[in-house]
Amino acid sequence: MKHTDIRALFASSEQYIGQEVTVCGWVRTSAEVKPMTFIQINDGTTAIRNLQLTIHADAFDEAQYASQIKPALTLGVSLRAAGKIVASERNGIELETTSVELLGGCPEDYPLQKKRASAEFLRSIPHLRTRTNLMKACMTVRSTLAYAVHAYFHNNGYTYIHTPIITNSDCEGAGEMFRVTTQPWNASYASEQEYYASDYFGCKAGLTVSCQLEGEMAALGGLGRIYTFGPTFRAEKSGTVKHVAEFWHVEPEICFVNLDELIAIAEEFIKSILGYTMEHCAEALAFCDKFVEKGLLDKLNHVLQSDFARVTYTDAVRILQESGETFEFPITWGADLQSEHERYLTDVHFRKPVFVTDYPKEIKSFYMKQNDDGRTVACTDLLVPHIGEIIGGSERETDLEKLTNAMREKKMPLENYKEYLDLRKFGTVEHSGFGLGFDRLVMYATGIGNIRDVLQFPRAYKHIY
Amino acid sequence: MKHTDIRALFASSEQYIGQEVTVCGWVRTSAEVKPMTFIQINDGTTAIRNLQLTIHADAFDEAQYASQIKPALTLGVSLRAAGKIVASERNGIELETTSVELLGGCPEDYPLQKKRASAEFLRSIPHLRTRTNLMKACMTVRSTLAYAVHAYFHNNGYTYIHTPIITNSDCEGAGEMFRVTTQPWNASYASEQEYYASDYFGCKAGLTVSCQLEGEMAALGGLGRIYTFGPTFRAEKSGTVKHVAEFWHVEPEICFVNLDELIAIAEEFIKSILGYTMEHCAEALAFCDKFVEKGLLDKLNHVLQSDFARVTYTDAVRILQESGETFEFPITWGADLQSEHERYLTDVHFRKPVFVTDYPKEIKSFYMKQNDDGRTVACTDLLVPHIGEIIGGSERETDLEKLTNAMREKKMPLENYKEYLDLRKFGTVEHSGFGLGFDRLVMYATGIGNIRDVLQFPRAYKHIY
Repeated sequence: MKHTDIRALFASSEQYIGQEVTVCGWVRTSAEVKPMTFIQINDGTTAIRNLQLTIHADAFDEAQYASQIKPALTLGVSLRAAGKIVASERNGIELETTSVELLGGCPEDYPLQKKRASAEFLRSIPHLRTRTNLMKACMTVRSTLAYAVHAYFHNNGYTYIHTPIITNSDCEGAGEMFRVTTQPWNASYASEQEYYASDYFGCKAGLTVSCQLEGEMAALGGLGRIYTFGPTFRAEKSGTVKHVAEFWHVEPEICFVNLDELIAIAEEFIKSILGYTMEHCAEALAFCDKFVEKGLLDKLNHVLQSDFARVTYTDAVRILQESGETFEFPITWGADLQSEHERYLTDVHFRKPVFVTDYPKEIKSFYMKQNDDGRTVACTDLLVPHIGEIIGGSERETDLEKLTNAMREKKMPLENYKEYLDLRKFGTVEHSGFGLGFDRLVMYATGIGNIRDVLQFPRAYKHIY
Repeated sequence: MKHTDIRALFASSEQYIGQEVTVCGWVRTSAEVKPMTFIQINDGTTAIRNLQLTIHADAFDEAQYASQIKPALTLGVSLRAAGKIVASERNGIELETTSVELLGGCPEDYPLQKKRASAEFLRSIPHLRTRTNLMKACMTVRSTLAYAVHAYFHNNGYTYIHTPIITNSDCEGAGEMFRVTTQPWNASYASEQEYYASDYFGCKAGLTVSCQLEGEMAALGGLGRIYTFGPTFRAEKSGTVKHVAEFWHVEPEICFVNLDELIAIAEEFIKSILGYTMEHCAEALAFCDKFVEKGLLDKLNHVLQSDFARVTYTDAVRILQESGETFEFPITWGADLQSEHERYLTDVHFRKPVFVTDYPKEIKSFYMKQNDDGRTVACTDLLVPHIGEIIGGSERETDLEKLTNAMREKKMPLENYKEYLDLRKFGTVEHSGFGLGFDRLVMYATGIGNIRDVLQFPRAYKHIY
């Protein structure tokens, strides 16, 4: 008999009451309270809620109980059960169980025992930690946020572009790229040139740090309004709670849009995807509110309801200088904002998300549009309370001469960017875009404090979990 | 004045007639037919349709015409235009233009001139080829298919999982993996062990060829029903029209589902995403039907309306042997089906998509469930006319002993698969999954014959375009 999703049972519980159904799942808890036995199972289709199998011992003879029910009392076993759905005070419904079939046993060395395991221990069993409520809640939120990203852009006429992971350009010029090769570890060549000439691509290749350059090429190259959503890579050797080597990045690029319009789009986008997720992940978010970050739901509701603040970098520096706070890093115009500064702006001064705009050009990337003041660029970072930056964006420089001058100042090899520059030559248009660190958004939406816990299989320095 | 998307104008043309609007776009064609001038522009928001700017010379004095209109007649320039939307026989509406502002010029060395360029030439200008109708149509179909994939799984209760690109396991055991490193090209170590110990991850790492193993871990690891959708990599040195080094892969993995149920899901899934795309990309698909593959729409409609065929490998071999056809490769039980055999089955014998099931275990992967006959495995390839295989799937082996025996036979290092094997030990359940080569699906849906033309920036042997 075909089984029914536990999700479907809860979603239409009224309709199922009185019906005979078959369900499958893994045992989460069990208890014998003679003459009753209770088993909670989960089949993965709900974020948190388990279905209770209610077993009257007198419905089974002793041999049946020993062969069918006893083995099903062990944490972690998988089973198929049949019976009738009945109303229940707890969770609305339960299964009055008439048969249980063990699918897979679970020996005593099962690492996920009842006592609460540390996040660090759970990271050592990535293949099993998705059986915990916290990881299930997190993965549900992550999946729903991802869907909301696609739905937002799809509904607003963006083309979803699959830009390449393997690249020979370095968007940020940060030099922290992984190299991709098919040469053996001990390949021996007389020169770098010969090494790469005989490599798979016939040239040096690495993993992309950002899809922006290709995104700009797609948008300016005729598609007008595009987004990318895929993995990007940084070979940073830092081990902070906000950094992994492989992270997911959302990057829209929009023609005929300036910085002001980009900021309006970014705010609408963030509200849209958080709103969708709050609507569709109420159970998972309530769990996170209770066990991960008290006040999470209030925080998210506050974001949905507030108009995001906006301040120029120059005004932000003044606010910080006049704050009377003692910061570890000094505030001077021209230096980048440190986490403590960002936190003061979001958590103390504005108490909501804030777009900081027009940073000094020296601390920002070559592709940002130069403002008329000659000192700043038309860019923005969206800072959110507790997390800091989750979006970095800008209007792009469309003037070929200004752009090449900026690249020369940063000592970039212009010949590697011919195609990128071509698009300033052949029908250039005003355009803007931003990048959203998707993993950080999941951290923000769940309250989970370590980026290694919002990815099932994180990749970090010296760690392939 | 804020500009209006050309897409929006066409979508609600009745409503816009008589309205003053501003539009932006790139010039696709222009013609002076005194006293009229016509300019077709495209802003990327439509797949194919351009908006016509209709200019009455007498609405401009001579100096204005020379400064505003003349520069806008050049193919490839970008402009902003304002005027009133009026009804038009061609395309329903046009813009009775009162002002034109050039945004970006386009010098004579613009590579995309009017005469039709070859696909090969267009591949050399990936940043500009999205301005051609064909690439725009293709990218529209690709984006819509991708959205339909997400929508199908989201609406059916799957969790979208971001599995890692960087991995230390080789799912297919094919050995055609790219290596990922931060060691310099001329790093010199006494041993392989020392080389990798001092590499970024402290071990050998490569680019994933399939997300299946992690997908199984996520599904069996408590999420129940998941899918992945991301890039995967093969360092094959073949240069066929169906192979690139980096391709997008859709891989669902579903607990409590056997091969029969998987096949039903795969058929429903393919029909769902093609149906959605036909509904939402009528313009782009009509273009492909006219200029790429005559009969494309009939073909796709036929797929939506037919029940996919189903045949075992053993029966397929018999059909081929009894066909009377002369094949280049001999048909013998135990050998893999070649393209010519697949084509006979789809194009001649069944004349529709066909699931071939239960291949000999020797030519399939270790993770497939072994059938009771001892010779075959519970797998399926979905073959479609013209393209061949677009889906490969199977029920997975859930019996720990059978699985480890199969791995030993294939001389796989069991110690690298501890986590994968753990899930057969702790609450194993029946589960099945498939992989869809997304780029091949785009080829099928558009009729485009070369995989390098369904990705804007393809990656292939000796080619980073």
